[in-house]
Amino acid sequence: MSLEEALQELRDYCRGMPPVAAMQVDVDGYSDGTLQLSAPLSANVNDKGTAFGGSLTSLMTVAGWGLVTLNLRLAGLKADVFVADSQVRYLAPLYADLVAGAAFAEGQSWDTFLDTLRQRGRARIQVDARVQLPEGGLATTLSGRYVALLKQ
Amino acid sequence: MSLEEALQELRDYCRGMPPVAAMQVDVDGYSDGTLQLSAPLSANVNDKGTAFGGSLTSLMTVAGWGLVTLNLRLAGLKADVFVADSQVRYLAPLYADLVAGAAFAEGQSWDTFLDTLRQRGRARIQVDARVQLPEGGLATTLSGRYVALLKQ
Repeated sequence: MSLEEALQELRDYCRGMPPVAAMQVDVDGYSDGTLQLSAPLSANVNDKGTAFGGSLTSLMTVAGWGLVTLNLRLAGLKADVFVADSQVRYLAPLYADLVAGAAFAEGQSWDTFLDTLRQRGRARIQVDARVQLPEGGLATTLSGRYVALLKQ
Repeated sequence: MSLEEALQELRDYCRGMPPVAAMQVDVDGYSDGTLQLSAPLSANVNDKGTAFGGSLTSLMTVAGWGLVTLNLRLAGLKADVFVADSQVRYLAPLYADLVAGAAFAEGQSWDTFLDTLRQRGRARIQVDARVQLPEGGLATTLSGRYVALLKQ
């Protein structure tokens, strides 16, 4: 599967999930190991006129999920991917559209993850996601553990 | 302000926030120190037919935010409430409507929180939220720190 096909598959997934569709999530692209997703502030605004914490976390969670799913598809594997746990920090209010980037955490080996998944049918990997402020600095960060279960 | 008025204010807030309105969040009630919120599975379903992780986290985050906001209103105070950080665990898939309960974490003192807020204009408190499985056991848990800033 090509990168473009895998990205399109992610877009279809996002449109097919009602809560993600309601957030108007877009899959921007994948480069330098980072999957970027975005969503307009207007659909994700809270009572204070800033990005809603739940939307920020959802976008980062989906970005991490998409990162693992995309790389599995590029490796020719089909698996169900679940988020197992996450730690989120809300660092500064965001008054702009939400743009989240997700990458594998430092020290994580994609090859080991793939080997484990092929051998045991189940593997886990750590992902770091973040939403940056347009003026520089971070709005939110997420550190999440994702589990993949190989489909037979 | 009466409890019923404070609950109605929360409902109005939830309806006024587009991402929360899209999740179709309802404020069920407040009893025994627990604020209960719910949302239908249909508006919060993922690609696997279970509750979307982002929606579960959003619902728990809003429940915690609502718990602090509600108690501040009952105490006659107006403050902006923010989530500062959270740890979420996804323990089991949920194939039913989402029902979240939030309560102050063990060892947290509401009186100390109020005193600090009145004296310094800013205070923080730890909240535990959870979504239970209809058959018993837990779907997800959240431990979150919330910050209140007194409005002048």
